Formats: sequence, C-alpha cells, structure tokens
Amino acid sequence: MEAPQEDRIAVGRYSFRSRLFVGTGKYRDAQETREALAASGAEVVTLAVRRVDLGALRPGAAGEGSIVGHLVSSGYAILPNTAGCYSTEDALRTARLAREMLGTDLVKLEVIGDPKTLFPDVVATLEAARVLVKEGFTVLPYITDDPISCKKLEDIGCAAVMPLAAPIGSGLGIRNPYNLEIILEHAKVPVIVDAGVGTASDAAIAMEMGCHGVLMNTAIAGAREPVRMARAMKLAVEAGRDAYLAGRIPKRLYATASSPLEGVIGSTKS
Amino acid sequence: MEAPQEDRIAVGRYSFRSRLFVGTGKYRDAQETREALAASGAEVVTLAVRRVDLGALRPGAAGEGSIVGHLVSSGYAILPNTAGCYSTEDALRTARLAREMLGTDLVKLEVIGDPKTLFPDVVATLEAARVLVKEGFTVLPYITDDPISCKKLEDIGCAAVMPLAAPIGSGLGIRNPYNLEIILEHAKVPVIVDAGVGTASDAAIAMEMGCHGVLMNTAIAGAREPVRMARAMKLAVEAGRDAYLAGRIPKRLYATASSPLEGVIGSTKS
Amino acid sequence: MEAPQEDRIAVGRYSFRSRLFVGTGKYRDAQETREALAASGAEVVTLAVRRVDLGALRPGAAGEGSIVGHLVSSGYAILPNTAGCYSTEDALRTARLAREMLGTDLVKLEVIGDPKTLFPDVVATLEAARVLVKEGFTVLPYITDDPISCKKLEDIGCAAVMPLAAPIGSGLGIRNPYNLEIILEHAKVPVIVDAGVGTASDAAIAMEMGCHGVLMNTAIAGAREPVRMARAMKLAVEAGRDAYLAGRIPKRLYATASSPLEGVIGSTKS
Amino acid sequence: MEAPQEDRIAVGRYSFRSRLFVGTGKYRDAQETREALAASGAEVVTLAVRRVDLGALRPGAAGEGSIVGHLVSSGYAILPNTAGCYSTEDALRTARLAREMLGTDLVKLEVIGDPKTLFPDVVATLEAARVLVKEGFTVLPYITDDPISCKKLEDIGCAAVMPLAAPIGSGLGIRNPYNLEIILEHAKVPVIVDAGVGTASDAAIAMEMGCHGVLMNTAIAGAREPVRMARAMKLAVEAGRDAYLAGRIPKRLYATASSPLEGVIGSTKS
Repeated sequence: MEAPQEDRIAVGRYSFRSRLFVGTGKYRDAQETREALAASGAEVVTLAVRRVDLGALRPGAAGEGSIVGHLVSSGYAILPNTAGCYSTEDALRTARLAREMLGTDLVKLEVIGDPKTLFPDVVATLEAARVLVKEGFTVLPYITDDPISCKKLEDIGCAAVMPLAAPIGSGLGIRNPYNLEIILEHAKVPVIVDAGVGTASDAAIAMEMGCHGVLMNTAIAGAREPVRMARAMKLAVEAGRDAYLAGRIPKRLYATASSPLEGVIGSTKS
Repeated sequence: MEAPQEDRIAVGRYSFRSRLFVGTGKYRDAQETREALAASGAEVVTLAVRRVDLGALRPGAAGEGSIVGHLVSSGYAILPNTAGCYSTEDALRTARLAREMLGTDLVKLEVIGDPKTLFPDVVATLEAARVLVKEGFTVLPYITDDPISCKKLEDIGCAAVMPLAAPIGSGLGIRNPYNLEIILEHAKVPVIVDAGVGTASDAAIAMEMGCHGVLMNTAIAGAREPVRMARAMKLAVEAGRDAYLAGRIPKRLYATASSPLEGVIGSTKS
Repeated sequence: MEAPQEDRIAVGRYSFRSRLFVGTGKYRDAQETREALAASGAEVVTLAVRRVDLGALRPGAAGEGSIVGHLVSSGYAILPNTAGCYSTEDALRTARLAREMLGTDLVKLEVIGDPKTLFPDVVATLEAARVLVKEGFTVLPYITDDPISCKKLEDIGCAAVMPLAAPIGSGLGIRNPYNLEIILEHAKVPVIVDAGVGTASDAAIAMEMGCHGVLMNTAIAGAREPVRMARAMKLAVEAGRDAYLAGRIPKRLYATASSPLEGVIGSTKS
Repeated sequence: MEAPQEDRIAVGRYSFRSRLFVGTGKYRDAQETREALAASGAEVVTLAVRRVDLGALRPGAAGEGSIVGHLVSSGYAILPNTAGCYSTEDALRTARLAREMLGTDLVKLEVIGDPKTLFPDVVATLEAARVLVKEGFTVLPYITDDPISCKKLEDIGCAAVMPLAAPIGSGLGIRNPYNLEIILEHAKVPVIVDAGVGTASDAAIAMEMGCHGVLMNTAIAGAREPVRMARAMKLAVEAGRDAYLAGRIPKRLYATASSPLEGVIGSTKS
C-alpha cells in the first residue's frame, strides 16, 4: 500500500512527501553525510550557516563545505538554520546572509539562550520571527514546548512551529507529551518536533501523536552506524504516520475492561 | 541498505527474516485478513486452534476456516496457539491436535489463568511446556514478564520465551521495560514480546531494547484501518531492529552534560 | 527527630519553615478554608487580588472577603497574586494595588497567556518582573519550566522562580522532571513548583528532586475532603524534604547489579 | 485531624495502625536500627530468620542478634521472613523454626528464584504457602506483580499478598502500576507492596493507588541518613493514605478541558 499522493506536509508555499527533516552536521566525512541523507529519505536538509565556510555556499566551491553543492545538485531542499546565534541581531544577519547565498526564503530560526543547554531564548526568537516574517522569509522557529509561545509564533506568521522534544543532542525523546498535545490541539500550522530525538521510537511517537514532521541531526550522525540509523528513522517516521492515520486501538487496563483509558496521551488519538 | 542476509531470528530449528509475528483473529473478513497479513510482511502467523472449525484445518476445506488453506498455500509458517485453554490438559490436547491436523511441531503455548485479564497461569504453563518439549514440540510459551519463569521455560527446553508487554488486547505497550531488560540480560533463547502492543512505537521500543521479535493481533486487527496498521507495524519492527543494531546515542540531560545517563533503560543499549 | 532549626526556605528577605504554599480559592466556605489552611501547616497563603472584593482587603471588612482579615489575624504571610491578569499593565496595576491594600511587598506574579490553558505569557511576565523588581517588590513569578526564562527572571532580581509542574488545575504532577532538573542545577534562588500538583506524591517528588517549595490550590480545595488532603500535602512535603536530605539509595536494575542507574532523574540526587 | 480509630490494616486475625512494615537488616549497628525503627513508626518489623544467630532468637540472648530481644520488649510485632530460602523445603523449615523460636504464627514467605535478581520462585512460593496455611500460619507471601499468582495465594488462604514494586534493593519504585491496579481491583485480602521502594514518594504512590501497606528495608537502611529516611517513609505512607482517602482531583490536560483523563492510573481513584 503506497501512501496516498495527498499525504504531504505543507510548510508555507512548499510541500514535501517526507516528514523527516535532517541536519548535515557531525558526520565523519562527506561520504557518510551523503549516504546517511540518502538513507533517511529526507527531502529537506538543514544547514548551520554559521558553521559553514561562506565561500562554500557558492555552488561549485570545493573543500569541506562542498557538501552544499552536492545537496543542491542532488535535489534536496536546503533549510538554512541560525544555530549558534545568541541574539536577535545575530539571527537576523545570519538568516539574511543565508537567503542571499543560498537563494531560498526558508529559514529555521534558532536563537539560543545558553551555550550549555542550547535551549531557545523565547523573547529573542519572537522578536526575530516578527522581523523575518515581515521580510518575506518562510520561518520555521525552534522553540520551547510552550503552547503560548507556539501560538504567538503562529500569529506572527511563521510557517510552522518547531517545539523541542528535549534538549538538543540529549537523545531523551519527547519529555512532555502533554505540552505537545496541547500545542497540537491549538496549532493551525504544522508542528515539527525539533531536537531531543534519540532513537527510532521517539520519532514514531511524535508522528503517532499527530505531529506533522520531525527534525533531527545528532540522533543519526552520532549513532555508531549513522547510515543504518538514518534508515531506521525513515521507517519510524513512516510507521508513526501510518499508525496515526490507521487509528490505533484504545488503551484499556485489560481487553475486557468496560471502559477504555480515554484521554490517556496517545490513547484514542487518530 | 538491505538488512544483511544473516539478521534472521532463529526459533528452534526454524529461522525467519521477519521479526513480526501476527495473529489471524478479529478481522472483518477473509480478504481483510489476507491483505493485512501481506502488508505486515510476517512469515509466521499464529492460529487459535480452538477457535477454528476443525474440518477447516484440513487443506482444501471451504468455509470461514478456509483461511488456513490460504495461509498454507501462501507460504506462511503456521504457529498454532492454545488460546482459550485454562488447564495443562486442555493445552496439551489442543497442541497435539494442532500438530496432527497442521503437520507442524511449532506451538505457541498459552494456558490462561483468568478469562477477564487473560494473564497466563504460570504453574500450568510450566507443566505443559515440560510435557510438550518432551513430546518433541517446538514450544513458544506466553508468560508473565517474570525473569524466573522465563529462565525455567528456557531450562525446560522451550525454543523461545514470550513475555507479555501488557495484558492481551490492552494496547498499553511495554509496561515494565525493567523486567524485560532483566529477561533479555539472562535469556539464551529468543525473547519475543507477546501481547499488549497498541501502536507502532510500542513494537519499535521492544526491538530497540534488543527483543528478538514481537507478536501481535489486536493492535492490527482492531485498528480502524487494519491494513495500514499492519504496514505501520512492519516498518516499526524494522525501524526498531535497525535502531538497535545502529547503536543509538547515549541519553544526556543536555548535550554538553559531562556524563551520559548511563543505565537508563534503553539508553546506551546497542 | 525534629527538623533542624536552620532548614528554612529563604525568599528574598523573608524565610519560612513550611515549604508548602497554598491558595485560598475554590473552597466551599470560609470554615473549610480555615480548616484546610490550618491542616496544611502553610505559613504563606496566596490570594487572588482580582477575585477578592477590594473592600474586603481592608482589615475588619465583612462579607466573603473577610477571609483576608482572618488570614492576617491568624499570622499567615499573605502572598498576593495577579491571577487573571493577561497583560503586563494589568499585572503591574494589580501588584501595586495589592501592596497598597495589604501592606506587603510580596507578589506572586502571574501574567496569563491564554484563558483556556492558563499557561503564562513568558514575554509579558519578564517585562512585568523587571518593573516590579525595580519598584522594590519581592517578586515570585509563575513561569514555564524553561531554564532560560527562569535564569532571566533570576537575573532580573526575582526572589524565587515558580515553574509550573503542569497546567494550573490539571492535577498531572511534574510532567517534565528533566527540565526541572536543569532549572535546579542552575538556579541560585529558590525553585518553588507552582501549579499542576494533583496528589501527595506529586508534592513529595518535587521536594525529593531538590525543589525548595511547592505551591498549590486546586489539589487541596478540589479534593473530596479538602482538609484531609491538606494534611496529606503537609506530610508529603515534609516527607519529600526529609527524603531529599536523607540521601536516597541509588537506583539499580536489581540489588546486585554492578553499577547504579546513575543519572536517572532523582536517582542519586541528595 | 487525627486518622480515625478505624483506619487500621487487618492481616488475618491481627490489625495494625501503621501501614509501614520495615525490615531490620543492613543497619550500621543496633542503635541505628533502634532509632530508625522508632522513627518509622512501624508496628511490624520483619526479621530474616536465616541471617540471625539462632541463639539470639531466645529472649535475653546477647550479641548482634540481641536486637530481637529489644524488638520484643519494645512491643513490636515480629514478622519472621524466609529470606535466603531457595526451595519450598527450605522455606517450610525456616518458617517452622521461626514459629517455634519466636512464638508467632506470622510469616513473611519468601522463596527466592535466583540469587542475582532475588525475584520469587512463583511455583515454589505457591507450594509452600499451601502447606503453611494448612499448618495454621498467617502467611504473607512475597510474589511477582502477577494478578493470577496473587489470586491463587488468596484462594490458598494467605492473609495478604505482597507483590513486588521492583526487584529487592533496586530502589526503582512501582515499575508496573497497571499490574498493581489489576491486583487491587480483584484482591479481597490486603495488598502490601514489598520490595523495590527507593524513596518517600514511591511509598506515597503505593498508598494513593489503594495499597493497604508497604514493606521496605534497604530504602531506609541504605540511605545516607537512615533515621531521617525512616521518618520520611512514615510521613509518606500517612500522606499517601490520606490522599487516597481524601479523593484526589481528576487529571485533565488542563483545568478547562471538557473531560478528565479518566482511567489514567491513579487519576480518579479514591
């Protein structure tokens, strides 16, 4: 059974078949990057603009950054991100540079609040989002799993919201499905879980809850076998999406229990 | 990347490529059964001998039970089960009948302790297993997630152990990963999680822990769209297995935390 | 064994022996309020200024609000809160009114972001906190469990931070102990869990993690027997604090396991 | 508010006010034992008969075992246990010896299945329970959290059932509240959680679920400050019991959510 044509995720004026968004950092070398990205089935790859040699952003450039050329020529949609930016100004500058160099209005907005935990700075993120939306960017902001901040970002005009599952690189999976449930209940833009995924089931759980996509980097690049983990993540996102659409059985204390455990997170969701 | 040839699950003298074992009950009709089984990619299907018209066990028989003929002719390995048996004697009689009618020494041994919760009767299961192993059966017993009972069943000569994730039909997923972890630490035969799976991520989690297989029925047959859920389960089992083999990243409170959360269930398992 | 004299919680220039802070709303009548507060052993009671008849804030006033007079004359420390305020301006006005009428510089700052979920508005809370601290208030802000926002509030000069355990009135308990753990790791002011506690163990868990106090209202006032629940909460907070100070045993998969499950939340914390 | 006179736990023909049962092993010295037992408020203390010098069981004996004399003279009810027994025969012999030496028909039956994990041997426990009940003992069996085995022990005539929360000495707390919930739903004798408690909230949670009592040893004796932890456990058991009786608020995703999260474990239990 093929996934029907219409099950795509729409982000602003773009739409994608794969709901797995992946990063390009932390791989051993360019070959491993290429193989892992291919195995992941991702269409959108995110790129830390501040960590890439600027020259490398020019198509045809050599060196480490030449991965960009490969990505573009391979047909990936590039989602530049502002990782490493600690202020609104830094994030704005980086986003504008990315648009100029890469010719895309897509931007994954990150304004980091603390180099240790890498949690977002909510206030600065909202400020930067407001400016970038006005400047015509398609903004996907990384944010805490706070329903109010997500709603504000949506009202500002962001194309999606990207609440964290857990701290970047922690591998803890979705630490607060309740907050995510509330965000999903109210969001009118796609909710893409960003950061904190550690293994395949974490991605599946996000999709089963009704999230529209998942973005990850460390979980794949940091695995002992990144290419195999990329494949696992591809399968897990598809499995979770299918399970969501298939309408799972309700949870019960035991099969003959008179009433289902209604309202349990993920219980009767479909 | 194809799964390497050697990643098969060995159960006694049999071996299978698919680690997903599925039941055949509770489907709307024979066509849905066939389509769901096909979508699941399972090679082994389990059959409740007591619920099937005996005549139907003869190849070529018509009627509802004709599913058996279809299963055999389609190349599925049939795993007869003793569901509905509440005593050692019942289970033995049912197992022997199944062997005679179906021409297989495989048996999924269930001795139920209570019609309400469908938990196994540990004492009767151990008794029946002892007899069946002596009679040359390849025994896969359904059992509580008790490391001692699993060890006893292994010592008796069972070809696998099948601890429950949660009560049959509950859809609760793995309720006690700690017990399962202890069972996996000590088992020398395959550990196949049986019962309680509700959705795709439940199956992925079992595989990520290092379980060798997963058996389910209600989670697929009871879903709103069984065929789609069967596909989700196929993908989830493969995703979980790949994630296990790929060696996941350790869990940390945050990426720069000095030490990983070692020992957390599933944390650094590979 | 009496708790030693020095185990007090210091909030700005105040200090209290009881680490349980309670609300005064939602009780059936004044008598139940009085009895529940007494049973809770709380020294600090919080009061929703906007929900109280203003005249009642004058000592000696009659009517529903006369509870205020009782509280003051009974020696409770009054912690006025700005519940029901949806903007910085509202919160500032309410805090100033409370100071004038009640003669205290203590204020529990709440700027609500949404009447449905009652999550805080992070941006407005930060703004209001900045002003109130400058005006000399001892500010205890209600906030999301976001380490960055908590750090900012501390840097602004708040006397404590009050991250939510779960949505107000939800009774879900601590939904994200990981975030709380990070907040505790970095905070230099008391961390008082505010909102979301449902039952006694929720309060005990907060204290065992090292939180300095717990604030609740609905969990007590909404129980079938509020006075008994108030007693349960008193005991639970003391139990949790004692368990924290006593230094719990490490978690292990089983007693003879070679290594403890270090780093598991709450595992070896003391 | 005093706990009403009638809230006692009845075990066979005995009844106790305190619902906390404590062990006597692993303390640094006799004084610490005495102080911790006193701080725990326990009326019943359990004693590992095989680990105690037999002579010491005679009132008046000196040496390490003299703790027994102290316990008896201090009015504690002694609950001899068969810890360290690995067969039905061993357990029977130990129980009979305990009755003879200590003059009590109470016995905490333990038949251990494995020296590593200390999980019970279900089959041997059932056998031994059958004999001991016939011989007139008041039997409290340590058992897995398996509803069927608990029911069998009740049918045999045990005065209580003591399912494990987690492996002995693990400190993991209640690993499977679902199984415990099913056991509580069906049990007609007291359910006393035995083994696995690590900290105060673990004990509170057991009581909040409706368990009738909690037994522990390592959690207190192994804490950095055993006497303080004993006090914490006393408070936690009382807190949990009170919270259970007080009828907690339902769990909701947020306060204004239209329906409570019914059926969530511990959600609307009262």
